[in-house]
Amino acid sequence: MAHSIPDRMKAVIKPGRCPGLEMTELPVPEIKPGEVLVRVRAASICGTDLHIYRWDEWAQGRIKPPLIVGHEVTGEVAALAPDVISVAVGDPVSLESHVVCNECFYCRTGREHICERTQIIGVDCDGGFAEYIAIPAQNVWRNAPDLPLRIAVLEENFGNAVHTTMAQDVSAKYVLVTGCGPVGVMAIAVAKAAGARKVFATDVSDYRLAMAARAGADLTFNVGEVDVVAALLEATCGEGVDVLLEMSGAPSAIDQGFAVLKYGGEAALLGLTPGPFTFDLNQHVVFKGATVRGIVGRRLWDTWYQTRGLLESGAVDLSELVTHEFALEDFNEAYRVFMSGESGKIMFHL
Amino acid sequence: MAHSIPDRMKAVIKPGRCPGLEMTELPVPEIKPGEVLVRVRAASICGTDLHIYRWDEWAQGRIKPPLIVGHEVTGEVAALAPDVISVAVGDPVSLESHVVCNECFYCRTGREHICERTQIIGVDCDGGFAEYIAIPAQNVWRNAPDLPLRIAVLEENFGNAVHTTMAQDVSAKYVLVTGCGPVGVMAIAVAKAAGARKVFATDVSDYRLAMAARAGADLTFNVGEVDVVAALLEATCGEGVDVLLEMSGAPSAIDQGFAVLKYGGEAALLGLTPGPFTFDLNQHVVFKGATVRGIVGRRLWDTWYQTRGLLESGAVDLSELVTHEFALEDFNEAYRVFMSGESGKIMFHL
Amino acid sequence: MAHSIPDRMKAVIKPGRCPGLEMTELPVPEIKPGEVLVRVRAASICGTDLHIYRWDEWAQGRIKPPLIVGHEVTGEVAALAPDVISVAVGDPVSLESHVVCNECFYCRTGREHICERTQIIGVDCDGGFAEYIAIPAQNVWRNAPDLPLRIAVLEENFGNAVHTTMAQDVSAKYVLVTGCGPVGVMAIAVAKAAGARKVFATDVSDYRLAMAARAGADLTFNVGEVDVVAALLEATCGEGVDVLLEMSGAPSAIDQGFAVLKYGGEAALLGLTPGPFTFDLNQHVVFKGATVRGIVGRRLWDTWYQTRGLLESGAVDLSELVTHEFALEDFNEAYRVFMSGESGKIMFHL
Amino acid sequence: MAHSIPDRMKAVIKPGRCPGLEMTELPVPEIKPGEVLVRVRAASICGTDLHIYRWDEWAQGRIKPPLIVGHEVTGEVAALAPDVISVAVGDPVSLESHVVCNECFYCRTGREHICERTQIIGVDCDGGFAEYIAIPAQNVWRNAPDLPLRIAVLEENFGNAVHTTMAQDVSAKYVLVTGCGPVGVMAIAVAKAAGARKVFATDVSDYRLAMAARAGADLTFNVGEVDVVAALLEATCGEGVDVLLEMSGAPSAIDQGFAVLKYGGEAALLGLTPGPFTFDLNQHVVFKGATVRGIVGRRLWDTWYQTRGLLESGAVDLSELVTHEFALEDFNEAYRVFMSGESGKIMFHL
Repeated sequence: MAHSIPDRMKAVIKPGRCPGLEMTELPVPEIKPGEVLVRVRAASICGTDLHIYRWDEWAQGRIKPPLIVGHEVTGEVAALAPDVISVAVGDPVSLESHVVCNECFYCRTGREHICERTQIIGVDCDGGFAEYIAIPAQNVWRNAPDLPLRIAVLEENFGNAVHTTMAQDVSAKYVLVTGCGPVGVMAIAVAKAAGARKVFATDVSDYRLAMAARAGADLTFNVGEVDVVAALLEATCGEGVDVLLEMSGAPSAIDQGFAVLKYGGEAALLGLTPGPFTFDLNQHVVFKGATVRGIVGRRLWDTWYQTRGLLESGAVDLSELVTHEFALEDFNEAYRVFMSGESGKIMFHL
Repeated sequence: MAHSIPDRMKAVIKPGRCPGLEMTELPVPEIKPGEVLVRVRAASICGTDLHIYRWDEWAQGRIKPPLIVGHEVTGEVAALAPDVISVAVGDPVSLESHVVCNECFYCRTGREHICERTQIIGVDCDGGFAEYIAIPAQNVWRNAPDLPLRIAVLEENFGNAVHTTMAQDVSAKYVLVTGCGPVGVMAIAVAKAAGARKVFATDVSDYRLAMAARAGADLTFNVGEVDVVAALLEATCGEGVDVLLEMSGAPSAIDQGFAVLKYGGEAALLGLTPGPFTFDLNQHVVFKGATVRGIVGRRLWDTWYQTRGLLESGAVDLSELVTHEFALEDFNEAYRVFMSGESGKIMFHL
Repeated sequence: MAHSIPDRMKAVIKPGRCPGLEMTELPVPEIKPGEVLVRVRAASICGTDLHIYRWDEWAQGRIKPPLIVGHEVTGEVAALAPDVISVAVGDPVSLESHVVCNECFYCRTGREHICERTQIIGVDCDGGFAEYIAIPAQNVWRNAPDLPLRIAVLEENFGNAVHTTMAQDVSAKYVLVTGCGPVGVMAIAVAKAAGARKVFATDVSDYRLAMAARAGADLTFNVGEVDVVAALLEATCGEGVDVLLEMSGAPSAIDQGFAVLKYGGEAALLGLTPGPFTFDLNQHVVFKGATVRGIVGRRLWDTWYQTRGLLESGAVDLSELVTHEFALEDFNEAYRVFMSGESGKIMFHL
Repeated sequence: MAHSIPDRMKAVIKPGRCPGLEMTELPVPEIKPGEVLVRVRAASICGTDLHIYRWDEWAQGRIKPPLIVGHEVTGEVAALAPDVISVAVGDPVSLESHVVCNECFYCRTGREHICERTQIIGVDCDGGFAEYIAIPAQNVWRNAPDLPLRIAVLEENFGNAVHTTMAQDVSAKYVLVTGCGPVGVMAIAVAKAAGARKVFATDVSDYRLAMAARAGADLTFNVGEVDVVAALLEATCGEGVDVLLEMSGAPSAIDQGFAVLKYGGEAALLGLTPGPFTFDLNQHVVFKGATVRGIVGRRLWDTWYQTRGLLESGAVDLSELVTHEFALEDFNEAYRVFMSGESGKIMFHL
């Protein structure tokens, strides 16, 4: 191994089957053939991380402690397995969080993002809230040397927004984003970058709607304060919207979004509902001749190339999206801010 | 007017706001600019006609008696308004049942099938269970002179099956058709004609499943007798199906269909559910990265050209689909057979 | 007829089979059923108009004098045939120049822009370099009341740029525009509005390349001064471009464009070559797995809706594109400027 | 290594920089990590093999002797590198001939068929006219145990036909195949399987046209005997064809094909012309609003899945396409028959 890699490292782990996380010291992981070791420089928190922190029903069914958590990661290549030639030690990289099999039907037809054997780092195997992570070389995306860490750390999550927004053409169209968490806000920025006619945004939080407006939303609506369906029909002269980007997972937002979707409109669904719910398939989809797309992760690697293009050209500017920065040691405080609902992205430095 | 057109004609109407229909005598309709008068030669019964016959909630909300019913119609051009040049008296024709405005956003972007001012003959304006019908010239589709009436009468309904099946690529794919009424059966024939890898069909009726098998279904399943999800996974070696064509409107069938849909699969929904129902959007659509399309009518006129191509080449043979024929006078007996559930298409001669 | 419409009007015509045009006085045209009379407020000159002015081989084969020329027109509705309800007297409008039949295969499948019986105003029938023009109501596009004439007059021509650019996805991609006449310049603006990674432009004229840069081109190349293929490969780190928008019709530019097109790239061709030429189909298309699209006019009316969306949102700003304005009487001077090659769009006021 | 694998094997090689091939004995190749050793059971001859045999200009520029030739291969897995888990010894397999890098832009966006570092077996590295071949595990496609060798050997080449035909929708459409070598003949079968309205075929050889007719062509035309353009317009009632599948590489056939292509039609080009030629881009592509696609190899692995679906369902039957079978030793006689032009596919047994 090149460079001076220590034997042990700091890592934030889910230690057992209970709420909370803890910081500990672990051996730096070994790399297997085809893998690289990445020195983590920054990481950020995603909604999934909160499920794990809280140890909710989903987490209890999926997570097998002890586990290093965290899947939004940027850093630099610290070491390579001997068979890896696609990157070099020192390369600045971000990580694709889905480790795929390369052999199933989906992987073999350009759809690795729905690989039937996907392992997500920080969920199904050790993640990146740690000083080092070992990961297959194919999961590493090389960044430009001058890409700021505060943007590089967002690339994986930004990919969700790019995948959702680019799943249909939005240029010259009315676009509605329901749910203005970080992915919704980034989707607004992508839709504007792609020349949307107007981008509308809804949420329950004025804090988030203010972020949405800063990202370029033409009109924002707090669903607790206005009749969103009426307001959107008025804002579109009765037309409704061409495209719905659903980021909230709230059944009421889904209903509102489809209610204002034009005939022949297109909906991309990334948000996850709390469970099955009463849905009016006739009115929302069939009679409308609508097209509805479920969105999973990011396309490997189509979305990453799009991501690079949008960032490199300046069409999308993510520099204001990180609102809070912490040392990894202060992870409990970071999660507390995250749970307050009054944050953009929260980033750890390592 | 050329030819000898009588002053009065027989017609089957919904006389008032109550169940049932009656035959009566009415003036032959006048044609306005842009219209043609069609001498009806045959017509067939659709599920919509049954709603009107029974005077259910939907019918009570939509139908304004008195109204000539019937929208699946074939015949020949009997007279033309002076400004009509696209057809000639004597031309054998079938009718597109959706009368569209030509001026709305949808009509002006090649999507007349979702015109916001659609009028359906036999539903919103006088239909074709009558000796004559006046209709815009653009709703008339010229048939080959040798096309048998028993096929020509099915073209409008066949268009639903073609539109649904062709809404995604089915060649070399596993296709599941849920619901084997006439449209489902025709969809099976279209999927086979387009080179599907295998076509599976489900229904509650052995009579209908036998029709499905005759139309080319590789395997049929009675949902009352077998665990359809398990059976389909076994039939596909655990893969599931690539394409779901939903024709039943039954929530249980919709759940089964999505349960066996592959990741990245495509679903086309034509069936109408009895109302909103509990749907697992996460599992059925989002996690799967599925694409779902609502289907309305037929594309004007893309679908009709496809319909012609499939019939003309012999790729689809509809000659056995009409199982019962009646004189229009015997409409009550025809509806009785239709309600028995043991029929294919039922056709009236005029 | 409402308003005071004079009996006679000024018009610029091709009087006979020879070069040049002349201004004359003619009766204001009568409107037939389905038509509207438009009071022309502004018009602009297109390359086609120059072919007619010069009376070149193409013009000699197509134009049948006497003919009112001009097809880029904006104005307001002055009168309606009694059957027209889609617009009202006084509406500000721009004109779609292709009069289509509504009855052919193409018109009936949402592709009116390739109607087999297209008549172009100012080419096949009387055009709009005149105080009034009679035109089918369906060729009239209503503008917002506050749309400046200097933008409204460009909408038809802008539609060529929108159609060409939107024929494939350009977001986050490298785009090359070969030929920086007004349509090329507008295509650059559209590609930037749609979030292209970078837009490159080539031309022989520094005047035009300066317009291209003002419209947003990231890099411009004078093909007379640099090795364009080498320069573009360098500018893309050897990748080549994802999308070629060919606006020049120059065989050398076509060769250069395809030479730098990536494998799997997409080309949209609007420019017309002087005639058949030596083309390397193997290297340019087959080996590359490229997709090539011929572009005709604008999609009716998909492109117009896109055009409206891009202008209304401010994503594209055309306000600087008209570089010269003339009274219609000064048409000879306008053509002289146009032929100098040092102009953007040239506009007539009426 | 499992099973009894000999040390040496028979192989047909290009021994040096001159015409012809020779049979020799060579060591059985070693397998590297990620590779499998395939015991070849059958192979077939492709047009590319003839270029190599004749040592023409293309071959002189590309081939580096000594080289084992042959890229259409079927057999069974004889041995695996320790890291290979996707197949097992004894599996019946066919080979994808393009060895791709998995790391370039194209490979990482689901387009491995245009990988910028493609190595073709039998062209750029050792091929399969030999008893054994070592090849990356990802190039191996598992066949059903009961797939006859005479079909399995064709899968790679059949993939070209499937890729070309499926590059656009052909269902219910008029399809023209220009060039009725084996790939053209297989394309005819695919187009029929996908429900084409009619399939037309042209060639210079009555032998090949007879094969085309047996594969399902509705009408065949010898271009040396009839005016193909006139005949095709007559056969389509003046409409022209919706889809052109160009398999000949003959400039005259390309011109004829585009001349009868409908406005808005689609062309897929697999045939390679002898070099650049005079092409009427205006008339053939631009004015028509046509879409033209260059076709390279097969999509990895989308096309193989389609291939399996079409064969497994019986939609395409290739059992008559092999017209001649030889022992590998008789390769010179096989090439002689191939050069006569009177053959379908020619197959070697090993």
